[in-house]
Amino acid sequence: MDAVVKVRGEEGGTEIRKVQVPSVGPDDVLIKVDVASICGTDVHIYEWNGWAQNRIKPPLLYGHEFAGHIAKVGSNVRNVKVDDYVSGECHIACGTCFNCRTGLMHICENTRIFGVDVPGIFAEYAKIPAMNCWKNDPKLKPEWASVQDPLGNATHSLFRTQVPTRNVVIFGVGPIGMMQVGIAKLVGARQVIAIGRKNRFRTDLAKKMGADFAILSAETDPVKFVKDHTDGRGADVVLENAGDAAGVTTCLRMLRQGGELSLLGVFGENASIDLSKDVVFKYANIYGINGRLMWDTWYRMAGLFKAGLNIDPVITHRFPMSEFEKGMAAMRGGNSGKVVLYPGK
Amino acid sequence: MDAVVKVRGEEGGTEIRKVQVPSVGPDDVLIKVDVASICGTDVHIYEWNGWAQNRIKPPLLYGHEFAGHIAKVGSNVRNVKVDDYVSGECHIACGTCFNCRTGLMHICENTRIFGVDVPGIFAEYAKIPAMNCWKNDPKLKPEWASVQDPLGNATHSLFRTQVPTRNVVIFGVGPIGMMQVGIAKLVGARQVIAIGRKNRFRTDLAKKMGADFAILSAETDPVKFVKDHTDGRGADVVLENAGDAAGVTTCLRMLRQGGELSLLGVFGENASIDLSKDVVFKYANIYGINGRLMWDTWYRMAGLFKAGLNIDPVITHRFPMSEFEKGMAAMRGGNSGKVVLYPGK
Amino acid sequence: MDAVVKVRGEEGGTEIRKVQVPSVGPDDVLIKVDVASICGTDVHIYEWNGWAQNRIKPPLLYGHEFAGHIAKVGSNVRNVKVDDYVSGECHIACGTCFNCRTGLMHICENTRIFGVDVPGIFAEYAKIPAMNCWKNDPKLKPEWASVQDPLGNATHSLFRTQVPTRNVVIFGVGPIGMMQVGIAKLVGARQVIAIGRKNRFRTDLAKKMGADFAILSAETDPVKFVKDHTDGRGADVVLENAGDAAGVTTCLRMLRQGGELSLLGVFGENASIDLSKDVVFKYANIYGINGRLMWDTWYRMAGLFKAGLNIDPVITHRFPMSEFEKGMAAMRGGNSGKVVLYPGK
Amino acid sequence: MDAVVKVRGEEGGTEIRKVQVPSVGPDDVLIKVDVASICGTDVHIYEWNGWAQNRIKPPLLYGHEFAGHIAKVGSNVRNVKVDDYVSGECHIACGTCFNCRTGLMHICENTRIFGVDVPGIFAEYAKIPAMNCWKNDPKLKPEWASVQDPLGNATHSLFRTQVPTRNVVIFGVGPIGMMQVGIAKLVGARQVIAIGRKNRFRTDLAKKMGADFAILSAETDPVKFVKDHTDGRGADVVLENAGDAAGVTTCLRMLRQGGELSLLGVFGENASIDLSKDVVFKYANIYGINGRLMWDTWYRMAGLFKAGLNIDPVITHRFPMSEFEKGMAAMRGGNSGKVVLYPGK
Repeated sequence: MDAVVKVRGEEGGTEIRKVQVPSVGPDDVLIKVDVASICGTDVHIYEWNGWAQNRIKPPLLYGHEFAGHIAKVGSNVRNVKVDDYVSGECHIACGTCFNCRTGLMHICENTRIFGVDVPGIFAEYAKIPAMNCWKNDPKLKPEWASVQDPLGNATHSLFRTQVPTRNVVIFGVGPIGMMQVGIAKLVGARQVIAIGRKNRFRTDLAKKMGADFAILSAETDPVKFVKDHTDGRGADVVLENAGDAAGVTTCLRMLRQGGELSLLGVFGENASIDLSKDVVFKYANIYGINGRLMWDTWYRMAGLFKAGLNIDPVITHRFPMSEFEKGMAAMRGGNSGKVVLYPGK
Repeated sequence: MDAVVKVRGEEGGTEIRKVQVPSVGPDDVLIKVDVASICGTDVHIYEWNGWAQNRIKPPLLYGHEFAGHIAKVGSNVRNVKVDDYVSGECHIACGTCFNCRTGLMHICENTRIFGVDVPGIFAEYAKIPAMNCWKNDPKLKPEWASVQDPLGNATHSLFRTQVPTRNVVIFGVGPIGMMQVGIAKLVGARQVIAIGRKNRFRTDLAKKMGADFAILSAETDPVKFVKDHTDGRGADVVLENAGDAAGVTTCLRMLRQGGELSLLGVFGENASIDLSKDVVFKYANIYGINGRLMWDTWYRMAGLFKAGLNIDPVITHRFPMSEFEKGMAAMRGGNSGKVVLYPGK
Repeated sequence: MDAVVKVRGEEGGTEIRKVQVPSVGPDDVLIKVDVASICGTDVHIYEWNGWAQNRIKPPLLYGHEFAGHIAKVGSNVRNVKVDDYVSGECHIACGTCFNCRTGLMHICENTRIFGVDVPGIFAEYAKIPAMNCWKNDPKLKPEWASVQDPLGNATHSLFRTQVPTRNVVIFGVGPIGMMQVGIAKLVGARQVIAIGRKNRFRTDLAKKMGADFAILSAETDPVKFVKDHTDGRGADVVLENAGDAAGVTTCLRMLRQGGELSLLGVFGENASIDLSKDVVFKYANIYGINGRLMWDTWYRMAGLFKAGLNIDPVITHRFPMSEFEKGMAAMRGGNSGKVVLYPGK
Repeated sequence: MDAVVKVRGEEGGTEIRKVQVPSVGPDDVLIKVDVASICGTDVHIYEWNGWAQNRIKPPLLYGHEFAGHIAKVGSNVRNVKVDDYVSGECHIACGTCFNCRTGLMHICENTRIFGVDVPGIFAEYAKIPAMNCWKNDPKLKPEWASVQDPLGNATHSLFRTQVPTRNVVIFGVGPIGMMQVGIAKLVGARQVIAIGRKNRFRTDLAKKMGADFAILSAETDPVKFVKDHTDGRGADVVLENAGDAAGVTTCLRMLRQGGELSLLGVFGENASIDLSKDVVFKYANIYGINGRLMWDTWYRMAGLFKAGLNIDPVITHRFPMSEFEKGMAAMRGGNSGKVVLYPGK
């Protein structure tokens, strides 16, 4: 079958190759991949940044976001069966470490990720542990089902805080931020203010997802804007997705006393924070977030879809998997939300 | 001025009387009442039930739900000023008892309620402590502003549980249940199943408020219905408003393991409960609820209105206050939601 | 090897039999049992009550509470190794049902329990899934390590509520209640009031475990006693272990407004509850509890032991496993805490 | 009467002066002060640092920590009476701002503090609002009653996190840190590691308060020490009291994934934080803390004392109030815990 493979440790270094359909162990399933989507992690691997150089060992089959149907199940598998319509949680957890045993399985101390540490799913067929399968609602669009990994990040970060009836800021409106706009509106935020830096394409998407306001910090003072729209008090909740070290102080300054700040972004440099003013006397609550709860977040996503969440605006590009390079270019261009790929085409 | 007064300890026993406009102490405000609404408590006083006989001392000026404008403020008052558009929390709390000091001010050990223990507000002018004022959004409809006492009950009971993305049952669809349907939909419940007993007028209103399903337990087995619509698992959340002692077992049977049951209804008789089956092994969480948080619930209501909550369908009857008896008849008839009264007319 | 086996479906019906040492599958371990302890469940099986008649299929090897050393590990096992000193969680969970995936693995929808649904551990050697092993502190007394199943129930029920600095009632002082007395004192309860019915042996043990007061409800009005010792307000927390249906109203009456009641007892009959008075206006929080969190409760127990929890007073009887019948008689007699058995003797 | 007064805006600038016994308004009480204690805030006022220059308007009567007896009550006062043994919460809250109305009264937007914004209590008699009185257990030592303001900070910061059964680090062992050691031990921390910088007098006091370990970061690598004592995993809870900007990274590095960090210290400079490594991927929870909950924290303190908390080791110096300068010198010297003063002597 055709597969998208990182073949060389260099920028790009990616080819569509013929590989064997994987064989299936007793606890695994084989999945016929209907649609896959490109993650920021795939971009890091493609661009061969520092993180990728340390972690990835080419050749590596890319990809961890997908929707598909079960083609084969291992002998011990009980939770899914052939023809089930599934997506997959990409974190393979050990089940017995401290984190796994205390509600933090999604940050298992021994996590392996498919498409990163073991072969991924940018191919016609993929093998994953049966434990990692999530059964989708048969009516769910495959493209929506495919992006539940980033949607899960968005969801988990948002539900770590108290959004319904509250004033909410989405700081950083890449695909995850756009999704959070939609979720925050769906769960009855008092108002949602989306804040980007310079990319109007993305704040426009945030508006399409329902933001009451979507501003660019390059044009509008975001702290003043938020205060002006919250009786001078500040936001109850700020969700940081930008990984903007200087922006964290902005986030804290626009937060009300006793407010909540979720940090989901990945920061390239240290942040300099006035802890007394912006945390201690602000009485701020700050939560570091990564991954998605296994599996409470997935049940929440099913509920969001059932309640009417529409993420079509976020899915901006569609390509046959053979045109992976076009998809990657769209991701890297910035004027995009999620990019989906169709294997076997 | 004209006022609605319980003049005699008997069923009915109510007259429109001329009374003095109240004088205002240093910590009080005088309010020009724009609109008032009839509460179930007013019905109890009118019907002179056992509770009323024990607590009420005629003559008593009725009423505690209202919206109006500040006409005068006492010398110590700082939090509101003349012409402010306000509603009022009817619980006058002492501020220093254990409950007041530990986040339970709304169930103050020394609570006095206006329209129950002290003169109420079914009149052109009313005096209340300035501390009990809530400033309304100037754009809020007076009828909506008036019913924030029961809306607050509905809101508080609902937010004691985890509704967004979850399967939610509203058990009992009087005015409070109808409001909860609207709130649950607004905050992204996965689905909302409203359950009445025999009154189709009210389940129809629940449908208008957005219920995905609204059934009558006299016609449809409610436990089976809920299980059938939740993969056989049961509801995550059940909000009881009916005060139906036998119904509590129904509520527990339709709850999933680990689910949440809020009890807001007032029960006329003991409930017989199979604690092992329906609580211990069900791993159920049960919360007794009364009142509204002072004042977190009020901020939540402001957020709900800002987020788009529409309670027009719940307000079914409007009368000049001089036609109080018609309003009371509508309340007692059952084919009603909230009944509002306009003083000075 | 010798094993304690329920051989016939009748009261008693138990024999010490020779059985094969179990063989070990790829995900299992074989354990050399150092000490085991008798659970109330074992008593039910012995007495052949209704529950046992429905669930148990003789012949069945008894027992699920133990401490021992790993003698052999299956080929896939990574979390433990030969000679590790372990106890075991007796609930074998499926890992993929709704409960397993949402933090409720301990009430897995497909639970099998060893000593109930599959062969138990009252023998020299026992086979359990490696996933179910808990590594003990090497310094932990084997008898203490053995009783972590009931200690876990006690711990889980207690930590569902807010005990430190609060007024706490332990209602029912069998082994689990005695343990809760010790835990509540260790975590800084303001005061601990233990309440038994008629058995002074057990309230004396509760005193030894540190109870500030230990009363018998047959002699002292428990509601009045609790009110008298809490400024008339009632207890912040009540932990019910007695399974006493009438007693639940007693528990609710001694609770303060807004207090917490954990129900861990198993109730033989329905309770008649005045929901309005004792739950709704009491603003009570009621939690149904069973099992122990997998595995947060186990980490808590390790912390309790490290912090100085001493449960020696609870372990009242010790027998060689060959004298199982004596141990069972001690359990059934009532003047006992936990009864431990030593295999191979 | 004699009173300690900041008479001039300069370092020192303090005199014992004769002032009038205050008159009492309708909502106030007059207190005969039995004992008072010196707070770090008093040191700032004495040293006339930047904060003091901005906020304090001499002449100002110092002091806000005390225990005493009610000598007179205003006409509206109901919650206390003459001869009651009381301490006082020094934050005078408005009762109607957003913070006051949402459980954050202790950080009221309009707070005035006695001894800072209005006259304090370093005198024989003091006037405070009756609302601010806390009735002490008659058996509580006056010196312990006097220091409930800092003890409340210690308590509130600690109970923001989950201490019982967990590995706890106290980072910074001034008086508040010492108190936290005692509280953490009392509520069953798995182990308590106290970390100072260079002052062995204070780590010795931390040991006296029950710390399992008390180390100086100048001598021992604190991150390595904590990891070595927590199976390499890190602490569940870190309580920062030092206000050490560089130390915050130390705190985060010694925290386990998903752990909790309370920040109570006041930081003189910005902290540079690697948010990706130390917060996002650490999945850390960070809470800014100031003040004490009004009044839940006070009930907790009463519970701590009843449960056996002993803070005698923390009270290192006692002077007649006439020797205020000696007390201030002891505070500033560093080899001290709390310094108490006796008025009228």
